[in-house]
Amino acid sequence: MKQFMDSDFLLDTETARRLFHNYAKEEPIFDFHNHLSPKDIANHRRFGDLTELWLETDHYKWRAMRVCGLEERLITGRAPSREKFEAWAGVLPLLAGSPLYHWTHLELQRYFGITKPLTPATADEIWEQTREMLAAEGFDAVSLLEKMQVRVLCTTDDPADDLVWHRQISEDGSIPFHVLPSFRPDKYLAGDEKANAALQEKYGAGSIREALAGALDYFCDMGCRVSDHGLSSLPDTGLMEYLGAEYARRGMVMQLHLGPLRNNSPRLFSLIGPDAGADSIGPKVDIRVLGSFLGSLEKEGCLPRTILYNLDPSDNAAVSTMTGNFAPQVQFGAAWWFNDNLRGIERQLDEMAEAGSLAHSVGMLTDSRSFTSFVRHEYFRRILCKKLGRLVEEGLYPNDEETLGGMVRDICYNNAVRFFAS
Amino acid sequence: MKQFMDSDFLLDTETARRLFHNYAKEEPIFDFHNHLSPKDIANHRRFGDLTELWLETDHYKWRAMRVCGLEERLITGRAPSREKFEAWAGVLPLLAGSPLYHWTHLELQRYFGITKPLTPATADEIWEQTREMLAAEGFDAVSLLEKMQVRVLCTTDDPADDLVWHRQISEDGSIPFHVLPSFRPDKYLAGDEKANAALQEKYGAGSIREALAGALDYFCDMGCRVSDHGLSSLPDTGLMEYLGAEYARRGMVMQLHLGPLRNNSPRLFSLIGPDAGADSIGPKVDIRVLGSFLGSLEKEGCLPRTILYNLDPSDNAAVSTMTGNFAPQVQFGAAWWFNDNLRGIERQLDEMAEAGSLAHSVGMLTDSRSFTSFVRHEYFRRILCKKLGRLVEEGLYPNDEETLGGMVRDICYNNAVRFFAS
Amino acid sequence: MKQFMDSDFLLDTETARRLFHNYAKEEPIFDFHNHLSPKDIANHRRFGDLTELWLETDHYKWRAMRVCGLEERLITGRAPSREKFEAWAGVLPLLAGSPLYHWTHLELQRYFGITKPLTPATADEIWEQTREMLAAEGFDAVSLLEKMQVRVLCTTDDPADDLVWHRQISEDGSIPFHVLPSFRPDKYLAGDEKANAALQEKYGAGSIREALAGALDYFCDMGCRVSDHGLSSLPDTGLMEYLGAEYARRGMVMQLHLGPLRNNSPRLFSLIGPDAGADSIGPKVDIRVLGSFLGSLEKEGCLPRTILYNLDPSDNAAVSTMTGNFAPQVQFGAAWWFNDNLRGIERQLDEMAEAGSLAHSVGMLTDSRSFTSFVRHEYFRRILCKKLGRLVEEGLYPNDEETLGGMVRDICYNNAVRFFAS
Repeated sequence: MKQFMDSDFLLDTETARRLFHNYAKEEPIFDFHNHLSPKDIANHRRFGDLTELWLETDHYKWRAMRVCGLEERLITGRAPSREKFEAWAGVLPLLAGSPLYHWTHLELQRYFGITKPLTPATADEIWEQTREMLAAEGFDAVSLLEKMQVRVLCTTDDPADDLVWHRQISEDGSIPFHVLPSFRPDKYLAGDEKANAALQEKYGAGSIREALAGALDYFCDMGCRVSDHGLSSLPDTGLMEYLGAEYARRGMVMQLHLGPLRNNSPRLFSLIGPDAGADSIGPKVDIRVLGSFLGSLEKEGCLPRTILYNLDPSDNAAVSTMTGNFAPQVQFGAAWWFNDNLRGIERQLDEMAEAGSLAHSVGMLTDSRSFTSFVRHEYFRRILCKKLGRLVEEGLYPNDEETLGGMVRDICYNNAVRFFAS
Repeated sequence: MKQFMDSDFLLDTETARRLFHNYAKEEPIFDFHNHLSPKDIANHRRFGDLTELWLETDHYKWRAMRVCGLEERLITGRAPSREKFEAWAGVLPLLAGSPLYHWTHLELQRYFGITKPLTPATADEIWEQTREMLAAEGFDAVSLLEKMQVRVLCTTDDPADDLVWHRQISEDGSIPFHVLPSFRPDKYLAGDEKANAALQEKYGAGSIREALAGALDYFCDMGCRVSDHGLSSLPDTGLMEYLGAEYARRGMVMQLHLGPLRNNSPRLFSLIGPDAGADSIGPKVDIRVLGSFLGSLEKEGCLPRTILYNLDPSDNAAVSTMTGNFAPQVQFGAAWWFNDNLRGIERQLDEMAEAGSLAHSVGMLTDSRSFTSFVRHEYFRRILCKKLGRLVEEGLYPNDEETLGGMVRDICYNNAVRFFAS
Repeated sequence: MKQFMDSDFLLDTETARRLFHNYAKEEPIFDFHNHLSPKDIANHRRFGDLTELWLETDHYKWRAMRVCGLEERLITGRAPSREKFEAWAGVLPLLAGSPLYHWTHLELQRYFGITKPLTPATADEIWEQTREMLAAEGFDAVSLLEKMQVRVLCTTDDPADDLVWHRQISEDGSIPFHVLPSFRPDKYLAGDEKANAALQEKYGAGSIREALAGALDYFCDMGCRVSDHGLSSLPDTGLMEYLGAEYARRGMVMQLHLGPLRNNSPRLFSLIGPDAGADSIGPKVDIRVLGSFLGSLEKEGCLPRTILYNLDPSDNAAVSTMTGNFAPQVQFGAAWWFNDNLRGIERQLDEMAEAGSLAHSVGMLTDSRSFTSFVRHEYFRRILCKKLGRLVEEGLYPNDEETLGGMVRDICYNNAVRFFAS
């Protein structure tokens, strides 16, 4: 029996252990898509307790707590912080096999040095110990990121944003990493008239296209290298092609997150609003529309570097093979949201290796609102090394540590640096 | 090499074995969805031989026999019982990797104490031995169910049914378990005018809604706690929402079985009729329609407790994550029909653990016409314990037998009791 | 650690090794679907070097090279042969987990006796050694096929083809296997008017149906036993039903390859044309249309033996269970194209075993343009034996070597012989 989540967590062969400890563990992080608050970074925000750090905005955990039958009061309601934490500690042991179980314990280990499982029996002790630590040096937002060797962060921002926090961060000599804005124009594509009018006014533009181009220029001045689109389905509109071409012209990377069905629970929407934990997987990606969209951009010579993410794992094969038609311009992204778990990451790595080249993957990102979610990079790296280790130990790949080690380093960090810089 | 299907069948770790033998094996059964004949139970039906017990109505086996090239005479035709059994014994060894292979041998082991594989060489001996046993005490329909520790059975019944056999069973003091009717109104939703008229007349109702409500009242008087809908696709009709609300008002559970395409072979349909073994997996679940249906009910405050079953495994992710939006009201059901096999059950448990909480699953059901199909609960429990055992042995979950054991007991029995009672 | 791709490659249990070495390895090959050039066979074509053998027409490799970022010059462009080979050797080590990695090394081992991995460091030596061998006896197209024990080959041919090379092959006493044409009428179904007119003229026919029937007669005279349709989606046309009936009448097998989306890159299409490596997986199979198509043919008594292949693995369950409705007439085909890899083949075997009968599968085919692609049969056979071996070693099937060995031989060769002869 392997020890519970020890230093060889998920590393089930000698080769996997060598690859992780010698090549993956120390690599820095280029987190090219997340939902961190730039304001919290700029302000070196501190966190009073684990409830504030973990439960305030994490709709993954809210969802799990609801599945376990907890009342809303203990989740997003008015229960005191400590009671909410105890509620979380109460259900966590029931989440065997959930990524939340592993993330929680990786976070306790890496940020707080706590190796015992969080259970109702250990909840008090862990609450006290972490509160003390959070009050000490080294646990503000910047330090938490620094501890994980973060080099570049791309937050997710509205085109109307003035990026004041990004500016403050870039001028703060004590922040040892880059925090770049990403251009996320969802609501303008959805035809939000009020938002459109405001953006046009802000950029003195006669059309929404012009306004978005103005915002893009400003974002790029502020270091932006990447856009992001969250789409239930790819709209068949000229505006999307227009933006694609604008990204290409500026050397930006376009990210398409395809497939969620949002705000399914009217009750939770009226109670909490969007991002309440009532989103799930929508209809299949319309692969014909996706193919023509990419094809049209390519035909016009303005296909930007692109990363495709699909939410329904049954779209993995269609989407990953679609990227191959436009390689190396178009990449298959890391396992997203409901796929971001042990089996989902393995599936994603398999797809990449089978239909493309795993060695050229731009690797992992957190896609998270949480400052301690960066252990997801470690989780991903361990699964990556497990997979490569298996190939070697089962005689499916030569025992060539140098090549595999280089591959691991590239996937962990170098490929992203190259892809976003090029 | 592990012994063939011994007491540690499927239990590949020490933890799995402990969990199964100490927590799962002895749990009683709450079989909340099956197609058993209440008449056969009321009559304590006896079976003359294995052909009568196994081959008379089991379209799973018919299908397998056809795939193996047997002529219809040996399957549903006029061949003598013994010849049919020999035909089955002849093809069974070719069904390596099929759930039928395991079910058959689990049934031979648990009901008859026969541990040798059924092959052409052993067919005669097994035929004779089982015939003798079937003629003795303890092999009538009631005894077969009692042997498996069945506590509650929910059969599948037409709203027009007068439930006379259910009444007889409830008055039969020698039957040590509950047999409750389920409300299955498929043909009324499909707009079968003759059936609608008859039901309206039976309940003196001015509309089909009123008639169904009348039938529901009667069913609930008779102990009914659950409805069941078999739908190629979820109809976008008010009648379905009406029924949902009626279920909620009565504290019933609604089951939706989504996705089969029925009676695909005109030849078999004209020869045998429906349920001939010519059904298969239909189009993807329309997840938008499903989401709005559940959302509308929730908005009106009348979302019943619900279990969703999808037939296409490529719908697993969309459907299981949809349940999470309405947790804990809505549950992801056990692996259904073409998914009810080793890989399919593992997949289902994985989905539950990743996207929700495996610990809160209401567990297994047989969905079968066969009185010896209750070994499927054992099959499921072994796979469940295998999965949990792996988590522990691979260091992915602490070696906390108490928590895991409780989880196993809940999934095997307690959760269903609570879900259907609440 | 297992040795890299040694004689027990993929055979991870004693049972798997016994099954492969005693039952699978020596079986001959019935390759009922490929894209080999009959002209090359008739001419006993020789190959100057590995670039000619491997890189001239293989769009799988082109695609992989593009994913790795190579410029088109080194892929389909004017770079010298040697440089192209070196480019391939340069990226191959990065393709860990790709079927191309295994195919390449199986080909080096089986045809050339080379067991060292192809890397930049070994590229020169391997280039020289193979060039020498290719210049010697035993490396022409016919010898390469003979070496793999090929007994029957079915090429893929246009109905307008005069089959002159097939005739020459059949008259060439030195060719020890059958090379049969397959009838592939895609462009006539797609309504290519020019092609239709030409075919009608060629066969003096008043309609395209009549012309196709004429061509079918000619093909059958030339030994044709099988048709092949490559379809993005099954057209809902009478012509397809007409052809189905014509196949049935002639005792031919109909193959349906469902689901590709072709020529997605306008750039590569204008540069190279079709089959440039820019095809991928299209929309889901419309399973209702497929069901009615098969049902109509069955109803009219003219359903030919049929093999269904789907490109999207998320269609596996729907398509494989659809075959069961019409068993044993309709078969689920081997893992096709983007599924033709370790995980894809395992998935396919699982589907067959769960929903039908693996023992009755007609087995593998190469679907390739390459004369050395016949190691894919070996790859398939190893995976098959691995799966069966696991069943035995894990106690899921009795240790009955005779039955399993017969099953293996049937799947490798005998079932195809029977299916295509019957």
